[in-house]
Amino acid sequence: MKVVKFGGSSVASAGQIDKITKIIVSDASRRVIVVSAPGKRFSEDVKVTDLLIQLGESVRIGVDNEKAYQQILDRFEGIIRDLGLDQKVLEQVVKKINDSIFRIKQQDPSGLDALKSCGEDGSALIVSAYLNHEGYATSYVNPKEAGILVQDQPGGALVLDESFDHLYQLRKREEILVIPGFFGFTKEEKLVTFSRGGSDITGSIVAAGLKAELYENFTDVDSVYCVNPMLVDNPRQLTSLTYREMRELSYAGFSVFHDEALIPAFKQKIPVCIKNTNNPSAPGTMIVADLPEREHHVVGIASDNGFLNLYVSKYLMNREIGFGRRLLQILEDEEVSFEHAPSGIDDMSVIIREHQLPKQKEEIVIQRIKDELQVDMVLIEREMAMIMLVGEGMNQTVGIASSATSAFHKAGVNIEMINQGSSEVSMMFGVKTEGLAAAVQSLYRTFFD
Amino acid sequence: MKVVKFGGSSVASAGQIDKITKIIVSDASRRVIVVSAPGKRFSEDVKVTDLLIQLGESVRIGVDNEKAYQQILDRFEGIIRDLGLDQKVLEQVVKKINDSIFRIKQQDPSGLDALKSCGEDGSALIVSAYLNHEGYATSYVNPKEAGILVQDQPGGALVLDESFDHLYQLRKREEILVIPGFFGFTKEEKLVTFSRGGSDITGSIVAAGLKAELYENFTDVDSVYCVNPMLVDNPRQLTSLTYREMRELSYAGFSVFHDEALIPAFKQKIPVCIKNTNNPSAPGTMIVADLPEREHHVVGIASDNGFLNLYVSKYLMNREIGFGRRLLQILEDEEVSFEHAPSGIDDMSVIIREHQLPKQKEEIVIQRIKDELQVDMVLIEREMAMIMLVGEGMNQTVGIASSATSAFHKAGVNIEMINQGSSEVSMMFGVKTEGLAAAVQSLYRTFFD
Repeated sequence: MKVVKFGGSSVASAGQIDKITKIIVSDASRRVIVVSAPGKRFSEDVKVTDLLIQLGESVRIGVDNEKAYQQILDRFEGIIRDLGLDQKVLEQVVKKINDSIFRIKQQDPSGLDALKSCGEDGSALIVSAYLNHEGYATSYVNPKEAGILVQDQPGGALVLDESFDHLYQLRKREEILVIPGFFGFTKEEKLVTFSRGGSDITGSIVAAGLKAELYENFTDVDSVYCVNPMLVDNPRQLTSLTYREMRELSYAGFSVFHDEALIPAFKQKIPVCIKNTNNPSAPGTMIVADLPEREHHVVGIASDNGFLNLYVSKYLMNREIGFGRRLLQILEDEEVSFEHAPSGIDDMSVIIREHQLPKQKEEIVIQRIKDELQVDMVLIEREMAMIMLVGEGMNQTVGIASSATSAFHKAGVNIEMINQGSSEVSMMFGVKTEGLAAAVQSLYRTFFD
Repeated sequence: MKVVKFGGSSVASAGQIDKITKIIVSDASRRVIVVSAPGKRFSEDVKVTDLLIQLGESVRIGVDNEKAYQQILDRFEGIIRDLGLDQKVLEQVVKKINDSIFRIKQQDPSGLDALKSCGEDGSALIVSAYLNHEGYATSYVNPKEAGILVQDQPGGALVLDESFDHLYQLRKREEILVIPGFFGFTKEEKLVTFSRGGSDITGSIVAAGLKAELYENFTDVDSVYCVNPMLVDNPRQLTSLTYREMRELSYAGFSVFHDEALIPAFKQKIPVCIKNTNNPSAPGTMIVADLPEREHHVVGIASDNGFLNLYVSKYLMNREIGFGRRLLQILEDEEVSFEHAPSGIDDMSVIIREHQLPKQKEEIVIQRIKDELQVDMVLIEREMAMIMLVGEGMNQTVGIASSATSAFHKAGVNIEMINQGSSEVSMMFGVKTEGLAAAVQSLYRTFFD
């Protein structure tokens, strides 16, 4: 059996839902379906989840937001009407939204997560109703019924291992099952969402639990590209990747897949296929545990901006046992998570995502570093970008670092940071944001042209 | 006034001491002299300090070591006899050695440090006696009299700031002063040695305290080479360097200077000149606070082996706030100091000097990492070497990383680790020890040929 996940653009309109229905029923092994919330129909459109978040934030601070509420209802109403479904489906969707708003007003701490989840939940109700309407026996299965149990960490839930056994029970069901993505429940039955883009996590968890032969992830691209297509025209498509490569690529700006989505599938060695709802006959990109060794070791170039460098220097730093640990402790106390910490003899840099260190937190952190570590200098350099080269076996191949650094040289972009030596599948470079596009383009020419 | 320091080979024999006496008296501003213990006269010779350490360790465990004791006395006796000095000088030297041995036998915890310091102390007694004998008014000044106060950290003393004011008082003295290097005293008058090679530290402290116009450091080479001459034949000599460059070079295998020796001189912006006792007319290498910008940004290649990589991987490591800090905490608890800690998404490497992690400690550390951090994998890779490119302004120069990595490529040596982004004066590469020489030679051809 196959577990199939459809992303936001695949359920954005009645036309798209009709397409995915044809995809589902064209293969009898496509038995368990996971859906996202309705996404964008055109580039200026707003995702239903974004509207739900806007609405929830307004309600939480006591402001009515009739406009967002109405936009959400209009989206669902339009889809249901165009699919020719019964009004009762709309009533179910609206009831869940209204119940969640009521809970937020009652100061119920899980109200916001419940409202955020209404996009996926609505999609699942609609898709299952439409499959039944088309004559295919189908059930909507709520994550609570499916047994998707998570830790209580709103907006960043981690799945509990026992979920997988619960999910395996779904194999007994004979009809098509449709499960909303993006959320699970704690043992105390509290609804908790995954981090943003978490429908991919649900899909991967469900595929792992059911021990699916294949997990198909339908999006709006034919395959995964080897580089961000916003930076390079018509980049090469990837026919196959390993899990590790995909995970490293997802980390730095590869938006096809959510950062941690693959872990559950990875652990069960379920193959994953990325396919296009709008072109289902294209072969897509297969992501698997192992691949035969390839001649070409760099398979992808990931890139992302929005990083900063917290730089600290102090004479005799390397004589001071515990210096690095105490610096990281200050960040941990202030709940700042860091990415990397390259160090010299008398200095240390900490690379942090900019949103982790807002202005007021920056002041506290800098003051604590000055007071507690008695450093000679501490400064923050913003507008940093990271570029990551990814490929199995890459770091054991003589000459990759040389080709990569000469690509930066040709682009006239200075390398501010190189972080290599831990991961065997990637090599990371830091540059100033202004040099990002030129560097990525030059790397593409070096490794793919 | 100038402070002049003579290394071990410059006081290894009567002939050498005669040479340095001529050097001292040839310039009236050479007023304060710091000396090391007698070093090697030929390559198989044993340094007096090594003999003293052997002797001390034997005595401490209750074993007589007549051989080492006699060798030490023979060295001093030979020098004193060949210089034609009075037997009383020998008696002074022997008395200090015997007193120290007695203190070790009495379980006096500072006895070992006292014995270790007898090499420098003997040199200072002999050099001052010989200068007087040659007709130049000279005094031996003990570090206690000079006011060199240190923290109580045997074998790794750190100087206390008030020492500099005490030393400044020595400017009032009119005769030549000879101070033994390598040790100071705590406020409780306990003798404590600096780390090995610590005569350079004494020289630098004395130059800083006296606000000398120049600190001359006499060794047995004409100048500092840009690369280890064991690896490259007749390498280029450096006429000038900045403090920061010298400090980074010293860190990784540049044995001319002791790692932290320059800090006190650096803080006072005292220029330092490295000269050759055996060729005092050669200009030597000047080390200064600032230099005009040079066209050639890489000034030196330092290299050292004896490192290991402690590699840890765990899925979702980057979601776990505090992971890196807790890993470093375990090392700190076990008193293992680390050099660098490059990290990936789900993995982290910690580069450690091999002697920091002996076998039994390795087992404890690995067990704690497994138990407390529940990692998926932890392993240790030994026989790693580090290569460091050093030069002011280097990291802001497009193309250096590219030239460097292509030098590794040409040598067929894989780069295991690159650590760049913290220091502005250096770029560090990790390789397997077997590739070290080839890589350094190729880098030399790239940047200096």
